[in-house]
Amino acid sequence: MNRLGTVVIVGVGLIGGSVGRAVRARGLARRVIGVGHRPESLREAVRVGAIDELTMDLPRAVAEADVVVVCTPVARIVDDVLAAARHGRADVLVTDAGSTKRRIVEAVEADPRGLAAFVAAHPIAGSEKKGAEYAREDLCEGRVCVLTPTPRTPPDRLERARAFWTAVGCRIEEMGPDDHDRALALTSHLPHVVAAAMAGCVPPELLHLAAGAYRDVTRVVGSDADLWTAIFRDNRLSVLDSLQAFQQQVDQFRTALERDDASALRGWWQAARFKRSGYLEPPAALPSVNP
Amino acid sequence: MNRLGTVVIVGVGLIGGSVGRAVRARGLARRVIGVGHRPESLREAVRVGAIDELTMDLPRAVAEADVVVVCTPVARIVDDVLAAARHGRADVLVTDAGSTKRRIVEAVEADPRGLAAFVAAHPIAGSEKKGAEYAREDLCEGRVCVLTPTPRTPPDRLERARAFWTAVGCRIEEMGPDDHDRALALTSHLPHVVAAAMAGCVPPELLHLAAGAYRDVTRVVGSDADLWTAIFRDNRLSVLDSLQAFQQQVDQFRTALERDDASALRGWWQAARFKRSGYLEPPAALPSVNP
Repeated sequence: MNRLGTVVIVGVGLIGGSVGRAVRARGLARRVIGVGHRPESLREAVRVGAIDELTMDLPRAVAEADVVVVCTPVARIVDDVLAAARHGRADVLVTDAGSTKRRIVEAVEADPRGLAAFVAAHPIAGSEKKGAEYAREDLCEGRVCVLTPTPRTPPDRLERARAFWTAVGCRIEEMGPDDHDRALALTSHLPHVVAAAMAGCVPPELLHLAAGAYRDVTRVVGSDADLWTAIFRDNRLSVLDSLQAFQQQVDQFRTALERDDASALRGWWQAARFKRSGYLEPPAALPSVNP
Repeated sequence: MNRLGTVVIVGVGLIGGSVGRAVRARGLARRVIGVGHRPESLREAVRVGAIDELTMDLPRAVAEADVVVVCTPVARIVDDVLAAARHGRADVLVTDAGSTKRRIVEAVEADPRGLAAFVAAHPIAGSEKKGAEYAREDLCEGRVCVLTPTPRTPPDRLERARAFWTAVGCRIEEMGPDDHDRALALTSHLPHVVAAAMAGCVPPELLHLAAGAYRDVTRVVGSDADLWTAIFRDNRLSVLDSLQAFQQQVDQFRTALERDDASALRGWWQAARFKRSGYLEPPAALPSVNP
């Protein structure tokens, strides 16, 4: 990818801040402008080296942008993408980092300016932490970034989106928005539901008897309630489907335990363990250009 | 606690190995003998500094013991405790490290020699790893060790068990075996069920789209199938009860999502998050005597 002029990051939280830090550390652009609603968040993003300049004025910020990366919560993404597309240059690339894709892509493509500028993306990286203070320039490094082009996505924008997310450190994977949402319901949204359901079961007076299993299973319930409410609603039908798959697993276990069936219990555990054994930690982060 | 003469560890896996390393690092005994079935495991325990001597002959090993710590899988604990009580000195203290307590305590107390020697214990520490090679002298440090005496437990043995587990680094908590099993069903056994059910849901071809939430929620499914089958069966009724509590949480979420009820979803998440906020990581390990 040729060096970019201006990259604008809309929403400088954990993801936006990390993308900004990666762009700056890798020298991918002449300048990175952060756009947000809250002056404190923007100042924090400057402090951690995620952006060069800050503004609350999206239209002015995007006027010069080569690439706009919308990293706001899913409920805000469509509005921010469309604003960037309307106020940006005719050749601007607008991409996002939202955890759901179907509704966002449909809404953006219903707008001609949005359609012409947008490539939906989802870098699969994150944490239960919130805010640019937790941003890491290697957060996306070696992680899959799913692009969800449709037959209507402009090929040149798709090419530029691939180049951008690759330059940030991601491995690119492409699929339709529906396929993305179905897959992520199982691989990400369901684990969040399960974590919260588990956390909801343990009364405070027993917490001192919890150890590593509880800690790890429930970790992500530290995530933001509004953020996850919006993701679940966006991906409602696929999340309900994934919950059904989960229910079948739980029912298999319950039946085996009710029958005190040792071999069924063992087989159930081993099957789950075997499935998990295919999971590989993402490759360790490589050293960055400006660590 | 006065320095002990001989401590015997029956079962030198992760827990037994860690107890042995702690006893040795803290200079709590003149010698630590490891008893096991598999010569390789015993040699590994010597290699990592968990035991001074190894043997496959339990009766001979316990003949000189002041304290015997049975760290075998729950299905073996009763036999090993009774063997230690029968072949040990009249004043031997036998304790264990099993994850369930009710069945073990009942079975041991049905035997007069067992009753006279035994104090049931459960140091709440561990990992999905298996074997002395993962043993750590600080594994128990700052962790709760639940003792589950009954009205029939000899008071002098209880006092010595408190002193032993405290000397190893644990914080002591006492409750009845039933209370222990009910609590641990929620705080430990249920998270294991949930982890395996979650791992069972994700087909291999989607694993590359999984990230931190999946990784953490499913981590403990790396644990041993036989070990967990035995724990679930030992604590069958309480695990089924805890599964019912979990089911209620899942049903609340499903209903809220089916209704697309944003405020119910948000409230559900926040309640879970709030409950989890009472969980405190155990205090960081203190430096040991011989690091």
